[in-house]
Amino acid sequence: MPAKRERWSREFSRWFDWVLEEAGIYDYGRYPVKGMGVWLPYGFQIRRRVIELVRRVLDGAGHEEVLFPLLIPETLLRRESEHIRGFEGEVYWVAHGGSEPLDVRLALRPTSETSISYMESFWIKSYKQLPRRFYQIVSIFRYETKATRPLIRLREVTTFKEAHTVHASFEDADRQVAEAIELYKRIFDELGIPYAVSRRPEWDKFAGAVYTVAFDTVMPDGRVLQIGTVHHLGQNFTIPFEVRIQLPDESLDYAWQTSYGLSDRVIASLIALHGDDRGAALPPAVAPIQVVVVPIPARGEEQARRLEEYIGEVEERLRRLGLRYHVDRREEVRPGRKFYEWEARGVPVRIEAGPKEAETRTLVVARRDTLEKTVVKLEELEEKLPGILEDVARGLRERAWSWLRSKVKRVEGVEEAGRAIEEERGIVELPWCGNEECGKRLEEEVDAAVLGSPLERPEWVRGKRCPVCGRPAVTSIRLAKTY
Amino acid sequence: MPAKRERWSREFSRWFDWVLEEAGIYDYGRYPVKGMGVWLPYGFQIRRRVIELVRRVLDGAGHEEVLFPLLIPETLLRRESEHIRGFEGEVYWVAHGGSEPLDVRLALRPTSETSISYMESFWIKSYKQLPRRFYQIVSIFRYETKATRPLIRLREVTTFKEAHTVHASFEDADRQVAEAIELYKRIFDELGIPYAVSRRPEWDKFAGAVYTVAFDTVMPDGRVLQIGTVHHLGQNFTIPFEVRIQLPDESLDYAWQTSYGLSDRVIASLIALHGDDRGAALPPAVAPIQVVVVPIPARGEEQARRLEEYIGEVEERLRRLGLRYHVDRREEVRPGRKFYEWEARGVPVRIEAGPKEAETRTLVVARRDTLEKTVVKLEELEEKLPGILEDVARGLRERAWSWLRSKVKRVEGVEEAGRAIEEERGIVELPWCGNEECGKRLEEEVDAAVLGSPLERPEWVRGKRCPVCGRPAVTSIRLAKTY
Repeated sequence: MPAKRERWSREFSRWFDWVLEEAGIYDYGRYPVKGMGVWLPYGFQIRRRVIELVRRVLDGAGHEEVLFPLLIPETLLRRESEHIRGFEGEVYWVAHGGSEPLDVRLALRPTSETSISYMESFWIKSYKQLPRRFYQIVSIFRYETKATRPLIRLREVTTFKEAHTVHASFEDADRQVAEAIELYKRIFDELGIPYAVSRRPEWDKFAGAVYTVAFDTVMPDGRVLQIGTVHHLGQNFTIPFEVRIQLPDESLDYAWQTSYGLSDRVIASLIALHGDDRGAALPPAVAPIQVVVVPIPARGEEQARRLEEYIGEVEERLRRLGLRYHVDRREEVRPGRKFYEWEARGVPVRIEAGPKEAETRTLVVARRDTLEKTVVKLEELEEKLPGILEDVARGLRERAWSWLRSKVKRVEGVEEAGRAIEEERGIVELPWCGNEECGKRLEEEVDAAVLGSPLERPEWVRGKRCPVCGRPAVTSIRLAKTY
Repeated sequence: MPAKRERWSREFSRWFDWVLEEAGIYDYGRYPVKGMGVWLPYGFQIRRRVIELVRRVLDGAGHEEVLFPLLIPETLLRRESEHIRGFEGEVYWVAHGGSEPLDVRLALRPTSETSISYMESFWIKSYKQLPRRFYQIVSIFRYETKATRPLIRLREVTTFKEAHTVHASFEDADRQVAEAIELYKRIFDELGIPYAVSRRPEWDKFAGAVYTVAFDTVMPDGRVLQIGTVHHLGQNFTIPFEVRIQLPDESLDYAWQTSYGLSDRVIASLIALHGDDRGAALPPAVAPIQVVVVPIPARGEEQARRLEEYIGEVEERLRRLGLRYHVDRREEVRPGRKFYEWEARGVPVRIEAGPKEAETRTLVVARRDTLEKTVVKLEELEEKLPGILEDVARGLRERAWSWLRSKVKRVEGVEEAGRAIEEERGIVELPWCGNEECGKRLEEEVDAAVLGSPLERPEWVRGKRCPVCGRPAVTSIRLAKTY
């Protein structure tokens, strides 16, 4: 029996609110400030494991974790003019400490390019110290005017991983962008989250960037969610902040930078893309509980004693495997209810064991992704369980990727594109001449946002023409209804 | 040769600023907002390991980690009147989002009793759900008017661990206070930080608490630093926030709470109390690098090749031990300079190996606490190194505890107390009748702050009298110059 994904896609928004509550992930809507919520214990443990994964990947690639102050003086934030224009409308300002007005207003960080560049000007003096790759995992604040949504569009983004790197040349920063893309692919792949990588159009790049590359995914309602961005910052921040370095030939130049970020949306898409009508379904790598054992009640004391002994043997084997497991021994709750709860929470594998299993020394093993049950001999548990967990991870990843692929449509005409977006949402991809004018025309006529172009010219546009101006296509352009 | 601790105590404040910079722990004073600094990569790794220890201890004792929003609406913060009176002068207020004024001002959390109690009123309905023990590790903000100091008195405290628990009775909350004290002892003991535990006087308890128990330590300059607090909150927050529970007899009552906190000061005292004139000295449990290997350069290619092979063998053994080690292979830096740097950073054990050691298959092992060097045979490294690391941990702990003990003086008269404080700082302890009046008189006459009394009546005050009123002493009172 494959897991049903009807309500999941049809009523995504309600389904998502439901799963966050039912699985105890994030309490949203009751906290008395719009756009802010509470990470609940179970959700916090998912978040913690996602953060550990991100740290492992970044630390392994020469990144150094740091922690900068939340508050950025207005004077600093205004020093790069494009940047402040991009954020001005969304900044929360602190103007008072106690009852005293502050000399300079302080911004709750919307992102940290300015404060980090400021400090880099003290730290970095020579090409010999480069590259440096800093990152921090912090809350950022944006006074969003669009409709807020839990983990997707928040006013306090509580899990913002921002990396900031410094280089001795444009090309070296360019290579760092390519490296960051590979690191992000590794993170998303380990979580089974599918993505399309696009170079954002000029008119939608990060405020202060030379260019921006973004990771997008398609949510169950067909709308596109940006889940990661990588920016080449050129010298746009090092000039106003005077991050000047000595080069090998002893001349002085401003350093080059990149920055790249991930947010709560990684967790939002993890929950959204793997889930089904029964709730969340978590990849074993980040599941707080990887295996839950549900004893099926025995009749009579002797049978109960033998069952408990048998469960003890199961536990011992799970412990030896080094898995995060939990035995749900609650007496007042019936097995069916337990199944429901652990399925909603997305535990990858459930083991059922009752008197029959104790007698035959077998176990019923249920996969969360397919809901398939198989009977496994106790003696073979240690041999088979790791493979089953890998199967679940693979199953989730493949299902999510085939969902994404099904939602990307290549079309050649504007009308066809409009119809596809209208009917199925997802991403439409058209041949494109590369001109801004035509791109903006497409946004209007297809009534969707431009995501950008693939990093390399796709084969299929060869010989095709831009549907707006009729000139030969040099690349493709992607459009979608976005969050 | 014992480590010198002269500059350490004589010029503590300058020493502390120096070590934070020299060891790459915390960049303070350059960030353009007073009272806020940057955790540098090495310092961040110390902080991360301290946090991991705190999590391990709390998770093991049934605590659940959560994450609440930073911003607390003014209306919520004002609901408990004692509480807001205690914090009002120090709250940073957000009044604008973009250019729009907000309907309700938002406070940057100074602590989270109010927002957590507010949410508990939705979550907790029955004694059957209790106890619940939540905690979070977050930044808090206080607009301090006193002189700020790195990690000791900051306006952004970046490592605030606040636990909040809910109970069905006063007594159960009382037991949780006792449990929290034991957990904090375990944390401080593992870090080798010595402490005195005092019940704070009525006039210096936490704003909103029934009573407060605090951990204090004595810094190298003899001034006392509060490093942890535990509060019984009674029903002081559950009444205004309506956290009402059903009791076993089906009646309704307000729940009971405790809260307890640790901050950046844990790390400040870790650095301050174990350090010496050469810099920091870290307990192996939280040292980012536990063992540093410094090769002593060889002459000639053949010798260099043999040395490198030998270092490889050392590495292999360190890897097998599962230690965090680093081989400092920098060619442009001389060994003496490397010793200096790694000593300043507080690496617990240094291994030196040159051509002579390679030939005799030995190693020179230097302890950071005593600076003692011993020769160890390579073949015995795996057997001996764990013991040496334990010795360092014990050495640091014992030195810190004997420092604290040397700074606590029991005296019987007011003048003697004043003289002791004047000359040696530290803690003075006097017999006390228990009355507030006499306590406050002592504060004036000794010219020091009351820390409070030990949790149990000390034996030595038996038969002694309060030096102010002459009535029989029921306990002792501790005073000190505090941070």
